[in-house]
Amino acid sequence: MKNTFGNSVAVTLFGESHGEYIGAVLDGLAPGLEINSEYIAHMLTLRRPDGKISTPRKEKDEFRIVSGAVGGRTTGTPLTILIPNENVQSGDYSRMKTVARPSHADYTAECKYHGYQDSRGGGHFSGRITAALVAAGAVCKYALEQKGIRIGTHVKRCAGIPDREFENLDADIRELNEKTFAVLDEERGENMREAILAAAAEGDSVGGILETAIVGMPAGVGEPWFDTVESMLSHMMFAIPAVKGIEFGAGFAIADLRGSAANDPMRIKDGNVVTVTNNNGGLGGGITNGMPIVFRTAIKPTPTIFKAQDTIDFRSLTETVLEPKGRHDPAIVHRARIVQDAASAIVLCDALAMRFGTDWLKTASSGEK
Amino acid sequence: MKNTFGNSVAVTLFGESHGEYIGAVLDGLAPGLEINSEYIAHMLTLRRPDGKISTPRKEKDEFRIVSGAVGGRTTGTPLTILIPNENVQSGDYSRMKTVARPSHADYTAECKYHGYQDSRGGGHFSGRITAALVAAGAVCKYALEQKGIRIGTHVKRCAGIPDREFENLDADIRELNEKTFAVLDEERGENMREAILAAAAEGDSVGGILETAIVGMPAGVGEPWFDTVESMLSHMMFAIPAVKGIEFGAGFAIADLRGSAANDPMRIKDGNVVTVTNNNGGLGGGITNGMPIVFRTAIKPTPTIFKAQDTIDFRSLTETVLEPKGRHDPAIVHRARIVQDAASAIVLCDALAMRFGTDWLKTASSGEK
Amino acid sequence: MKNTFGNSVAVTLFGESHGEYIGAVLDGLAPGLEINSEYIAHMLTLRRPDGKISTPRKEKDEFRIVSGAVGGRTTGTPLTILIPNENVQSGDYSRMKTVARPSHADYTAECKYHGYQDSRGGGHFSGRITAALVAAGAVCKYALEQKGIRIGTHVKRCAGIPDREFENLDADIRELNEKTFAVLDEERGENMREAILAAAAEGDSVGGILETAIVGMPAGVGEPWFDTVESMLSHMMFAIPAVKGIEFGAGFAIADLRGSAANDPMRIKDGNVVTVTNNNGGLGGGITNGMPIVFRTAIKPTPTIFKAQDTIDFRSLTETVLEPKGRHDPAIVHRARIVQDAASAIVLCDALAMRFGTDWLKTASSGEK
Amino acid sequence: MKNTFGNSVAVTLFGESHGEYIGAVLDGLAPGLEINSEYIAHMLTLRRPDGKISTPRKEKDEFRIVSGAVGGRTTGTPLTILIPNENVQSGDYSRMKTVARPSHADYTAECKYHGYQDSRGGGHFSGRITAALVAAGAVCKYALEQKGIRIGTHVKRCAGIPDREFENLDADIRELNEKTFAVLDEERGENMREAILAAAAEGDSVGGILETAIVGMPAGVGEPWFDTVESMLSHMMFAIPAVKGIEFGAGFAIADLRGSAANDPMRIKDGNVVTVTNNNGGLGGGITNGMPIVFRTAIKPTPTIFKAQDTIDFRSLTETVLEPKGRHDPAIVHRARIVQDAASAIVLCDALAMRFGTDWLKTASSGEK
Repeated sequence: MKNTFGNSVAVTLFGESHGEYIGAVLDGLAPGLEINSEYIAHMLTLRRPDGKISTPRKEKDEFRIVSGAVGGRTTGTPLTILIPNENVQSGDYSRMKTVARPSHADYTAECKYHGYQDSRGGGHFSGRITAALVAAGAVCKYALEQKGIRIGTHVKRCAGIPDREFENLDADIRELNEKTFAVLDEERGENMREAILAAAAEGDSVGGILETAIVGMPAGVGEPWFDTVESMLSHMMFAIPAVKGIEFGAGFAIADLRGSAANDPMRIKDGNVVTVTNNNGGLGGGITNGMPIVFRTAIKPTPTIFKAQDTIDFRSLTETVLEPKGRHDPAIVHRARIVQDAASAIVLCDALAMRFGTDWLKTASSGEK
Repeated sequence: MKNTFGNSVAVTLFGESHGEYIGAVLDGLAPGLEINSEYIAHMLTLRRPDGKISTPRKEKDEFRIVSGAVGGRTTGTPLTILIPNENVQSGDYSRMKTVARPSHADYTAECKYHGYQDSRGGGHFSGRITAALVAAGAVCKYALEQKGIRIGTHVKRCAGIPDREFENLDADIRELNEKTFAVLDEERGENMREAILAAAAEGDSVGGILETAIVGMPAGVGEPWFDTVESMLSHMMFAIPAVKGIEFGAGFAIADLRGSAANDPMRIKDGNVVTVTNNNGGLGGGITNGMPIVFRTAIKPTPTIFKAQDTIDFRSLTETVLEPKGRHDPAIVHRARIVQDAASAIVLCDALAMRFGTDWLKTASSGEK
Repeated sequence: MKNTFGNSVAVTLFGESHGEYIGAVLDGLAPGLEINSEYIAHMLTLRRPDGKISTPRKEKDEFRIVSGAVGGRTTGTPLTILIPNENVQSGDYSRMKTVARPSHADYTAECKYHGYQDSRGGGHFSGRITAALVAAGAVCKYALEQKGIRIGTHVKRCAGIPDREFENLDADIRELNEKTFAVLDEERGENMREAILAAAAEGDSVGGILETAIVGMPAGVGEPWFDTVESMLSHMMFAIPAVKGIEFGAGFAIADLRGSAANDPMRIKDGNVVTVTNNNGGLGGGITNGMPIVFRTAIKPTPTIFKAQDTIDFRSLTETVLEPKGRHDPAIVHRARIVQDAASAIVLCDALAMRFGTDWLKTASSGEK
Repeated sequence: MKNTFGNSVAVTLFGESHGEYIGAVLDGLAPGLEINSEYIAHMLTLRRPDGKISTPRKEKDEFRIVSGAVGGRTTGTPLTILIPNENVQSGDYSRMKTVARPSHADYTAECKYHGYQDSRGGGHFSGRITAALVAAGAVCKYALEQKGIRIGTHVKRCAGIPDREFENLDADIRELNEKTFAVLDEERGENMREAILAAAAEGDSVGGILETAIVGMPAGVGEPWFDTVESMLSHMMFAIPAVKGIEFGAGFAIADLRGSAANDPMRIKDGNVVTVTNNNGGLGGGITNGMPIVFRTAIKPTPTIFKAQDTIDFRSLTETVLEPKGRHDPAIVHRARIVQDAASAIVLCDALAMRFGTDWLKTASSGEK
C-alpha cells in the first residue's frame, strides 16, 4: 500500500527533504505504552550526521508528537510524529533539476512522476525521511524493551573492514544501543572511520554490512505464507534507501553448506526448546522459534561522490558529466544502523499484535489500569 | 495479509501436502489474457522432482483451472487453480508427529497452531504448495512474455560450484526457460548434479544460489516507500521455503565497493536512457529504471537428511534423535528456480497493474476486442 | 482488495455460475475450531432455492473442504471450500450474450471486462457465488456460537408485508436459525409467500428488508476510523447481490428523531453497562458497546422477470426488447437472509481476531490442548 | 486497516479534538494535479460551525499542506494536510472524564482503550477530525471536476422537513456546491433552520438525511465482489460520525417495489447506453454503469443535548445523571454534507486509479508535460 506498511500495527511515511515537515503516522499501537521522549531523541541523534564522517547539514530533528499520545502514554489511536525541515529555501522549486545523479532515484522519479516530483534534496526519496521512521520505530523499540524484547545492530563490515562477531547477544545489544558508531570492536571501528575519511578525502564514499540481532521474541509469531517475519522484515528493510540485500541466519553462506552442517540441532535447556546453532536466524517456516532473530543487510556506498561521473539530462535526453559540489556523507552505513533497529521494531510490533491482539504490548507488561 | 499477497494483482495460496487439493487464487488479472495450458504444464514439470536427483514421489500435478477463465482466456475475475494431491493415505492424521525435524517448520508450527496443524508431509508448510504458486505464476509469466517482459533464473551456484555469469541476457533467458536443470554452462551443471548425487549417497543434502534476470520492464514502475519492486519481490521470495537471503544487482558485494565503482554511469543509447553497469539491478529508489532487474536468492540445503540428528519431542519436551527413512530431495535449488520465476511474474503483474491499471497487460499487447 | 475481504480473518471468493467450482478461501481462523459439517450443510440448504417460491434449478451444494481442516477441526491455515456446479453445459460459452438484462450486471461487466467475462448464468456476478460465502460463514457462525455469540436474521418485510418486531432476541434468534422461511410471525410469513407466488404468477418479482440481530459480542471491538464494525459490516453486506441499503439501530428513522429521543440512556444491570434503548444498534463510534448489534438491509426484487423489458444490445449499441423464458426466483429475500448471517459471522470473526489475536475464538472457548 | 482506507489512493486520518494538530495523509494521487487552496478553504468553511445554528467554537481551520505538493501541484507522493487545533488548554488531560455521554463514543472508547484515550472533546472520535477528511477530499474533488466528474450533496431532510427532489442534476450539483446550507428549495431550507433553532431553544437537537449525486463517472469502474463502488462508498460513509444508514438509488423503498417497477429499462441516447430510471443509483453489480451515482445517508441528531440524561460512570460502574453545560451543535446534518462530498471524492479517486492506473486523473485531463 505505497507509503503505508503493516497489518495490525502500520506506519505511514510522508514528506520531502525540503518540505515543511517530514513525518510518520504509527497506527495500531496498544494504548498505555510509555512515550520516552529522551529515548526517541537519542535514537534520532544516532541517525543524525555527526559532522565528521557525515554531512555537516545541521539537522536538529526536533520531533513533535501531535496526535495519539496524552500524558506521556499512547492512546491507542494514530500516533503522528512531525519533524520540521530547517533551512528550507522557498521558491527554488522552479528550477527543476534534470541531470540525474547516478544511482540516485532522480531518473526513476522522473519516469514515475513526470517532472512533478519535488527534486530538491532528493525530495520524497531523501534518506532524511528515515528520521521519521526512526522516531516512530523508537516508540515501538522502547515498548518492546519493556516486554524484554531487545534489538541491536552493528556495523558488521565497512569499507571492507569486519567487526568482530556477536558473542554474548544480550550484552552486545545493550552495548551497541549506547554507541554512536555501533561496532563491537572499538579498534576495528576506528579503522572503519579512518577508511571512511580516507575515501572522503578522495571525494569518494564507502558501503558496508549491518547485522541486527533480536532477543526475547516469543515463539510462534509470523503468518505464513506471505506475512512471515522474514517476508515482513525484508519488505521493510528494502524501504531503507541504499539497502541492496538481506539475509537471515547463515544467509548466503548457507548455500555452500551441506544439510548436516546447516541444520540446527534442537535441545531442551531449562525446560525450553533451543537450537544448538542458529543458522536459520530464529525462524522456521518464517515463524519465530524463540531463538534470536539475526539478519544482515548490504548497504551500498553513498551515491553522492565528488568525482566526475557520466550521466544524462533526462529532459533533453542528452549525455553530460556531473561534478557535484558541496559536501555529503562519505558513508551512511553507521547511520542506517539505527534506521534498521527502528524499522525492525515496527515490524515486530505488527507481528505480535496480529498474533496476540492489539493490547498485548501493554497488558502483559504491567498490571496497572 | 497472511496467505494473500499483492495490491492490484493478488495471489492467495492454500492447501496441505496430504490434503485433497492445493491451489491458488489469482485475482486482478486483466481480462482477455491467453491461458496457455502447455506453458503452465511445462513450468509445473520443471518444478517436479525428476526421480534422479530429486525425490521419486510421483507428482503428476494435473492442474485444473476451475474459475476465472473461459474459452482459453482470463475473464478478469479470480482465476483459481487446483492441483490434486495423489496417494494421500486417509486416516493417518490421528498420529500427530511430535518429534521436530531440525530446520523444518514442525516446531514453529506447533508453537503457532498448538497441535491442530496438519503435520503430514509438512502440511501447509510443505514445498509442495509451491506447485500452486508455479501454476498461478505461469499464467502471469506467459502474459508478461506477450508484452516482451521475460524472466529467467539459473542455478548460479550449487554445492559450491559456480555457473558462468549471464552474458547475453535475452538469449540466456530464452535458453534457461527450456532447460530442466537451469545452468548457463552445461559442464558446470553436470558437476553440480554429480555433487548432488555424492551428497545424496552420504544421506546428505546441498544448497545453492539462484539468480533471476528480468528484461523488458518499462521504467517508472514501483511504489515508494513500501511497495517498491525490491520490497515486493523480496517479500514474495521469502515465502518460498528454503530462501534465506536475497540481493539485488551487485548485492552484498556492493558493500565493499567505493561509490565511484558502485555507481552506474548513465548513457543515451538509441534514444533510451541506459546505465553502463547495473550494480543497482535495474532499480533506483525501488522503481524500475528500464535496465534488467537482477536478483539472487540463497537456498538452504534440504533440511531432510538421512543422518542421525539431535532434536526434541515438542509435546513431551524431551530430547531425542531423529533418523529419517525413505527418500527425499538431496537438493531443491534446481527446482526452486522455476518457483522463483513464477513468483516474480506475479509481483511484476501486480506492480504493472498498480501503475497502469487493470487492463494494461491486455490492452497494449493486442488490438483485438 | 477485489475478491478478498478482511484484515486478520479474510475471505476470498471465486467462481462463476457455470464454471466447474465456486468456492471460498477463509484465512486467519484460529486453529482447533470445530467444523460442524451438518451445520454447514443446513445453512447451505437454507440458501438453496426450494422449488416452490424459488427457482427449481437443482443445486445440491455438496461442499468439500479441501484444505485447512484435519480431523474435523481447523488447522489455522487457509480453509478452502469447493462447491461443484452441476449440469454445466460445456461449449456454450461461444455464444456470448450481448443483450443486457436490465438491473443485472451484464452491461457493467461488459464495460469492465470487454467481452471476456463469463456471461453464462451471470458468471462471477451470479448469486450462486454466495453459496461459497455461506459455507465459509457457516464455519465462522458455528465458532461464534461456541463463544456465546449468536446471529439471526428475519425477513422483516417482503412484498410490503411486515413481520413482527424482535421481542426476546435470544429466543427469536434461536428460532429463526431453525426456520426455512425466516419470519417471527408465521402468519405474516404465509402472507409473504402468497404475495411472492402472486407476483410469480404475473411473471413478476418482489423485494424485501432483512433484519439481523447479533447477541453476545464483547464490548470494545472495532477499529476507528475506517475499520469500525459498521464500516466492515456494510462493506461486506453490499457484496451481497441485490442489497441496496443498510442501516444500523434505528437507521433512517433516527433522522426524524430529536436527540432527546434518539439517545440511548445508560444503566447498570447486574454489574454490566447497558442501554435502555438501542437506537445505535449496539455500536458507539463504530465500536461494540455490549448491546445487541442490529442492522437491516434493503433487498431489491429479483431483476429477472417474465415481462417484456426495454433494453439494449451492448455490442451493437442498439435498442431491443427482452422477453426471458425459463423460470427464476420471484424473490430472493428469504434466501439472502442466510447469506447475511454468514457474511456477518465472517466480519465478526475478523473484528475479534484483530482485537484479541488469532487464537481468541479457540482459547477462551475450551481448555483442551 | 484501522485509520487508513483505500487501495490505490488511500487516506490516513489522525488527531484528537484537543491535540496539537489533526490531519490526513492522502497517498497515491496522480502527480501534477492542481492544488486549489481557495477551493479547499471553501470546503472547510462549509464544514465549519456558523455560530447561529451551530456551535460557536471558533474554528479557523487554517490548513497547511506540508508534503506532497510543490508549486501548487501534487508530486504523486503522500500529500499531508495539517490543521491546528486552537484554544487547546494544556494540562487538563489529568482529569479523565468517566461519565459517559449517551450515544457518544465515550463508553466504547473506554472499553477499547482502557482509560488511555484522550477524552477531551471526544478525542480521536470528535467530529472535528472530519475537517482533515474534508481538506483531503477537497483535493480529490477538485481533481475530479477537472475530469468532468462532479459531486453534490443536499440536506434531503432535516427535522422531518423534506427538501425538493433532484431535477437537473448538473445544475443542482453546481448550485449546491455554492451554498452554505445545501438545500435545493430555499424555503424549505429556511423551515429546516427554524426547526433546528426551535430544537436548540429547548436544549435539544435534530437529525436528517443527506443525498449525494455524482455525475460524469465513466462506466466499468469498481472491483467485485468486495471492492465495488457500493462497498467502498458505504465503508467510507460509516466512518463519518452520526451516519446510521446508507442506501443507493431507490434504496429501502425498492424493497416494496415489484421487479417490473424496480428494474431500470435501458436505452441508447446520443450513442451512449443510458437507463430510463435510475433505481440502481448508477451501479450494476457494484460497477458504475455511466448513470449518476446517487446515495443517501441517515444522520442522527447530535447526541449532545442540554437535557438531563440517565447515564453511568464507567469507572465506578454507578448510575448518574448528565446535565451538560456550554453550547453545542443542535444539528450537524448541514455540516456533514460537505464531509460526505469529500469522502466520496476520495473513494472515487481510488476506484479510478485501481481501474485506470495512478496517472489517469492527470494524463487524460490535460496534455502538458
